[in-house]
Amino acid sequence: MSQSFAIALIGATGLVGETLIELLEEREFPVSTLHLLASAESAGQSFAFRGKNLRVRDVAEFDFSQVKIAFFAAGEAVTRSFAPRAQAAGCAVIDLSGALLLDEAPRIVPEVNASAVAGLKPPYVLASPLSPVVMLACVLAPLVREHTLQRLTVMAALAISQRGREGVTELARQTAELLNARPLEPRLFDRQVAFNLLAQVGLVDGEGQALLERRLVAELQQVLTLPELKVSATCVQAPVFFGDSLSVSLLAGGPLPLAQAQAALVGESALELVEEGDYPTAVGDAVGQDAIYVGRLRQGLDDATELNLWITSDNVRKGAALNAVQIAELLIKHYL
Amino acid sequence: MSQSFAIALIGATGLVGETLIELLEEREFPVSTLHLLASAESAGQSFAFRGKNLRVRDVAEFDFSQVKIAFFAAGEAVTRSFAPRAQAAGCAVIDLSGALLLDEAPRIVPEVNASAVAGLKPPYVLASPLSPVVMLACVLAPLVREHTLQRLTVMAALAISQRGREGVTELARQTAELLNARPLEPRLFDRQVAFNLLAQVGLVDGEGQALLERRLVAELQQVLTLPELKVSATCVQAPVFFGDSLSVSLLAGGPLPLAQAQAALVGESALELVEEGDYPTAVGDAVGQDAIYVGRLRQGLDDATELNLWITSDNVRKGAALNAVQIAELLIKHYL
Repeated sequence: MSQSFAIALIGATGLVGETLIELLEEREFPVSTLHLLASAESAGQSFAFRGKNLRVRDVAEFDFSQVKIAFFAAGEAVTRSFAPRAQAAGCAVIDLSGALLLDEAPRIVPEVNASAVAGLKPPYVLASPLSPVVMLACVLAPLVREHTLQRLTVMAALAISQRGREGVTELARQTAELLNARPLEPRLFDRQVAFNLLAQVGLVDGEGQALLERRLVAELQQVLTLPELKVSATCVQAPVFFGDSLSVSLLAGGPLPLAQAQAALVGESALELVEEGDYPTAVGDAVGQDAIYVGRLRQGLDDATELNLWITSDNVRKGAALNAVQIAELLIKHYL
Repeated sequence: MSQSFAIALIGATGLVGETLIELLEEREFPVSTLHLLASAESAGQSFAFRGKNLRVRDVAEFDFSQVKIAFFAAGEAVTRSFAPRAQAAGCAVIDLSGALLLDEAPRIVPEVNASAVAGLKPPYVLASPLSPVVMLACVLAPLVREHTLQRLTVMAALAISQRGREGVTELARQTAELLNARPLEPRLFDRQVAFNLLAQVGLVDGEGQALLERRLVAELQQVLTLPELKVSATCVQAPVFFGDSLSVSLLAGGPLPLAQAQAALVGESALELVEEGDYPTAVGDAVGQDAIYVGRLRQGLDDATELNLWITSDNVRKGAALNAVQIAELLIKHYL
């Protein structure tokens, strides 16, 4: 492929933005020019890309007609303000903020629903879903190819880096205060998150449903093209810096023998199946890696239709930045 | 009640043993003499009880005919060695180690299956189940009184104190090493547990089932008198010092309206139902308290038969020591 593309990266100064820069270089993405952008207050910093220092500029002053693809890795408000401008300039948008509705910006996990892009017209407006959705979709897709899925129960323990650098700093600060027996004054969270688990992440609606959990379910249904799939999702804030971990129980429409499930998962390029007896964890296995790690695969007790498993992956890398770059790779291969 | 009882406490030097001593004093349990016992290597320490210092003696040299009730809060091997001796001396045994089979030592949660003791003959050999079982049984009992339970999915995030003082020390040590950027050499666990979640607790059998999870399911079925209840259980080691937290999803045989579930739970003395919008956590709510905290009670998405909730409680106190003392209170009230 000799063609190369001008790229804009909005939210370059965040954890996901920085990982996007690394991945574009590491995967030799055909970039002609990389424009690093952020809101006015974050502009001015510099990041290395292919041996040069690139300065982050104010997105408000950017002319999107210069680029073919724009990654939106800043907050929801930034996407809402500037994605329409990028689209109007004929630029493909890949959103990582969750700001756009599912019918405005279909969620894409290239290993699973790459074909969903074929039905769209340019300029393309696509989104990378929540990290647990990337993980679940890659694990479930090979299973639903051969089995009917009736019900899914997911407990997602989210890494603190889902709150960005501020989250990482706050967990470290709280932990240090506690180990030094100093009084704890929580910031960013309304209570102690160090050595604790918070049962609620983000806002909750009048029915007690967390908006994040609703989004997880809707995005997963869209990516798997299973709009009726019953999903019970609970998102918990864990005192873990990087790496989301999911405890998953699924019910199939009929017997789903363990050997069949193993065979379906073992051939998937995105997955690393950890053998019985051992199990993967965020720290030590998933963090810094491209793979989604699957372990503790086991049948239900006296129930051949039930399958239980554990999934862990780097939420910033595979769960966000890498999936977005894979969407861009899909676009340049077939559509741009 | 003017009668008082001589009591033996085996495993007095452990976290649960120490809490048992506190609770016997705090609840004014009618103790005539308290004998603190442990294995030979732990003997010699002293603990305060009702203003006096009691010295811990070697259990191997103890004559169980001196006491009416013996709490076994040491390891499984200690229970296996000495519980038969206590029983032969006519002493009631309350085991907290999990060493005895379910038909040798029925699991009792006094709020739930106190009546199970009525069918037994002295000398009584009873057991306090795993902390998550105490929590689940207290929450589910009021619901199963009015509704059929079809299926239960539980992700139990266990506090490190389930591994005793050694576990607590190891989490603190690992955390300090990491914050000081020193190389980590795990002890007690085979990997980093600080800022991580371990997907497997204890030994796993040839089918990938953890023995602890099998025990959890069997004990819960016994306490609820629902031997056929389908339960999917996953026990995870969390980097939390004290307080187990459970993410629970249950399916009823028919619609289980949220208002009915709330009404069933709100009247239970063992439970503290946290209102919508807020939620309980181990640190700040449960630790040091007698109550089992329930929150995030919510219906399934588009499924009136599904109910999701979060439970947290002090694993050492309510999950172990307090439940055992409540079993003893039940015994002296009706059976001794």
